Amino acid sequence: MSTDTSSTPAPAPPSAILETCLSVSDLTRSRAFYEEIFGYSAMVAEERLCAFNVGGTQVLILFSREEVANPVHLPFGTIPAHGAHGESHVGFRVAAESLELWRARLEEKGIAIESTLTWPLGGTSMYFRDPDGHLLELLTPGVWPIY
Amino acid sequence: MSTDTSSTPAPAPPSAILETCLSVSDLTRSRAFYEEIFGYSAMVAEERLCAFNVGGTQVLILFSREEVANPVHLPFGTIPAHGAHGESHVGFRVAAESLELWRARLEEKGIAIESTLTWPLGGTSMYFRDPDGHLLELLTPGVWPIY
Repeated sequence: MSTDTSSTPAPAPPSAILETCLSVSDLTRSRAFYEEIFGYSAMVAEERLCAFNVGGTQVLILFSREEVANPVHLPFGTIPAHGAHGESHVGFRVAAESLELWRARLEEKGIAIESTLTWPLGGTSMYFRDPDGHLLELLTPGVWPIY
Repeated sequence: MSTDTSSTPAPAPPSAILETCLSVSDLTRSRAFYEEIFGYSAMVAEERLCAFNVGGTQVLILFSREEVANPVHLPFGTIPAHGAHGESHVGFRVAAESLELWRARLEEKGIAIESTLTWPLGGTSMYFRDPDGHLLELLTPGVWPIY
């Protein structure tokens, strides 16, 4: 880590990632996918985005790529433009004992499991794609030192 | 939400997003940015990625876009290809009382604050960019109903 030569007091590192986001081409299609496959409920849904409550402490936001390519002017301020192309990657925590249920669920829905691997710490990663090709991963404990 | 007509038992929705990822063009530059600005420490750092421990329960992963554009073959399995271009978006949780420290820190480091807005629920969002132009947001409580 670099030496901190700042003259202002350092704020504490952000304690959590609250918003994890994916740019999607068809919001209706992607919302249906995350509801059907993951069982998430939309907390906020509008033309520009769909936000899911994840575990009561995190938000997964699907952004319509087209709608956020320009700044969004709200009555109380402006959200800067953003939007990604290509295949982003997000990893979701699941219980080890649920992994076979997930495998059956994905197979039943016709979603190809692209790879499954077991890490040196004992955890398993199962990879598949969302409708935009974003790489999704289900992780059981024992992939990272902290989990 | 769509009606579930599955014949297999539904696994519980993933309880958390464990891995939030950004594709970057220069891993060394981006690692230094997140260490210096956010105060995060690298938990794992290699040619392909740099992973930060966020709050003991989440991982922020910077991926070298070039290194993950093809599948990665490890002794115990294969990680599928991924990688995004453009401006992704990630939102970090910070305490309301730290917001002015953050403003001072960003200004001292020469990082432009692109927008600041206060939401109807009372929370504040402060937006700026990382070296790849990814849109970063610091959020105080009162942006989403769950936080």
